[in-house]
Amino acid sequence: MSFPSSWTTPPQQPDALLFERAAQRQSVLTKPAGSLGRLENVAVQLAGLQGTVTPAVDRVQISVFVGDHGICEEGVSAYPQAVTAQMIANFANGGAAISVLAKSLGAELEVVNLGTVADVPPNLPGVIDAHIAPCTRNFSEADAMTTEQLCAALSHGDAAAQRAADKGSQLFIGGEMGIGNTTSATALASSLMSKNPMKLTGPGTGLDVAGVRHKAEVIILAIQRHDNDDDGEDAIAVLKAFGGFEIAALAGAFAGCAARSIPVLVDGYIASVAALLAVSQQPDIRPWLLFAHRSAEPGHEAILEALDAEPLLDLGMRLGEGSGAAVAIPLLRMACELHNKMASFEDAGVSNRDQE
Amino acid sequence: MSFPSSWTTPPQQPDALLFERAAQRQSVLTKPAGSLGRLENVAVQLAGLQGTVTPAVDRVQISVFVGDHGICEEGVSAYPQAVTAQMIANFANGGAAISVLAKSLGAELEVVNLGTVADVPPNLPGVIDAHIAPCTRNFSEADAMTTEQLCAALSHGDAAAQRAADKGSQLFIGGEMGIGNTTSATALASSLMSKNPMKLTGPGTGLDVAGVRHKAEVIILAIQRHDNDDDGEDAIAVLKAFGGFEIAALAGAFAGCAARSIPVLVDGYIASVAALLAVSQQPDIRPWLLFAHRSAEPGHEAILEALDAEPLLDLGMRLGEGSGAAVAIPLLRMACELHNKMASFEDAGVSNRDQE
Repeated sequence: MSFPSSWTTPPQQPDALLFERAAQRQSVLTKPAGSLGRLENVAVQLAGLQGTVTPAVDRVQISVFVGDHGICEEGVSAYPQAVTAQMIANFANGGAAISVLAKSLGAELEVVNLGTVADVPPNLPGVIDAHIAPCTRNFSEADAMTTEQLCAALSHGDAAAQRAADKGSQLFIGGEMGIGNTTSATALASSLMSKNPMKLTGPGTGLDVAGVRHKAEVIILAIQRHDNDDDGEDAIAVLKAFGGFEIAALAGAFAGCAARSIPVLVDGYIASVAALLAVSQQPDIRPWLLFAHRSAEPGHEAILEALDAEPLLDLGMRLGEGSGAAVAIPLLRMACELHNKMASFEDAGVSNRDQE
Repeated sequence: MSFPSSWTTPPQQPDALLFERAAQRQSVLTKPAGSLGRLENVAVQLAGLQGTVTPAVDRVQISVFVGDHGICEEGVSAYPQAVTAQMIANFANGGAAISVLAKSLGAELEVVNLGTVADVPPNLPGVIDAHIAPCTRNFSEADAMTTEQLCAALSHGDAAAQRAADKGSQLFIGGEMGIGNTTSATALASSLMSKNPMKLTGPGTGLDVAGVRHKAEVIILAIQRHDNDDDGEDAIAVLKAFGGFEIAALAGAFAGCAARSIPVLVDGYIASVAALLAVSQQPDIRPWLLFAHRSAEPGHEAILEALDAEPLLDLGMRLGEGSGAAVAIPLLRMACELHNKMASFEDAGVSNRDQE
């Protein structure tokens, strides 16, 4: 098994001329220049990335990657590990937040099961079996995954991007679920950015102050065990060290989308860590990423800063599953509609500024 | 002609028990408590205001109030006054931002023409003739409107709320258009809150620094001319002094919606000034108001603070027309869908926190 080519090869860069043309169109629409704020930039960005004068996000694929984490042995989550498998059934049965949102948006929802400790009922609709192992190894004792397992997880992400391409998806959302995964994500981000985990660790699904401190201590000790030097680490090294399967798959999916020229709408804390990993591996992935929302998870800010990302929404969400990105989809759709359908000053017979 | 009863009588207060019941439902859905952030509060608020366990914003009325301003004689806008009438035709023909958004949302759009200097083509679809005068008087020289004109404008707003009630609207958006109306709005807000206009005056449709200073000076001089004391003024006095017709109609519509138990989603700067006027007149209107977005207009912040309002979006928009509120509608819809359709821990067989 080897790394997918989207992980080892830089993606194509979008054509700068397309962005200029779209910006030109925005400037003649019947509104004061810039008065639609960030909706104007979003439309221009999507037009440039999609290579069209009429951008659209009608066809959206949402892939939720799921995996369990060995680090849960250290008591880092408010929820029992069995919830990971239980939530897969909830996704499939339409009861989870992302299921409700995907249906409401008319988006394709698929769940990629990379391995859970508890059993998942067989043949759930929309659930893809991508089992690597029941869970990653406890990273306070050992590497979370082998190179083989990392390759498998990245490839499962790349395969999701391929499915999105096959369906003609105009935008990709990657979600995640896995009890314990803010612990992995914080270890990854701290290590990659050489930041103090005390500054990045947050409550995740709802730890109290003592719980957050314990979680940070677990991460600090684990990083000390894994670190060879103080210079930060590369994406492959930290993913092997801290997992998880679903975070690696997310990073692989983002790389896979960029390789196939599909814009990605990045969700919250964990998805942003996956984005940071992908961009750290291939900096040319960055232009393909849009950022949906600021998570309530306190470490998100530093990760967004490292990615030079300014998300659209700030609603205090911290659920994961791709839910924050799904909630931002209507903004993208309306930005496109305004860009495509508003009248120009000339067509509408409306005087432009400083004319009499 | 007299003030509408919705302006002179406090509205009914929503039932506190309904909010508690909705909050209770949020707490059993399959997500960590609070993890949907402000979407949870929005759903609870709508459930309480609509008096239902399953809130919805499928039926939305958008009323855009339009009027011209005598203060334009002082050179306070980057656009010629003819644009007000031209934009009415653009609204009707589907080319304006709010037209595109209303269609995309499946919302009812009506345009209430309270008076324009330039002629508007007759019989435009969706345009209601509510002519008061070609424009308000130049408030640097005289009162912008008479008591009669103010009563008429408030009544036209109240009538829009009645139409929304007749159609079973679940939510009301009030938009506005009128070249020069950020100047009126800033005079109103400065006067009502006893704030220095230099702190509240902004570029509106796009004045440069010198233009903003001139606009502020016009407002300062006008307030000095109208003010009898330093203690601030009541809503009726400032509306008569500074206009405009469309701002008064907006305030009347908000009062009319509260009187008919219809929640209002308040747009940006000018709509928020109208909300401040309505709440200043009847403080019990406040619970019926939700706030959509932070405008890029710098004075908006102080008005939101005075209303103790925390808008959902911050996208740098500053167009008016109700556009920022329209853009927030999908967030409200998704908040309702999540509230109504997510599975509970019990129904989905998902373990809740701290269970093994």
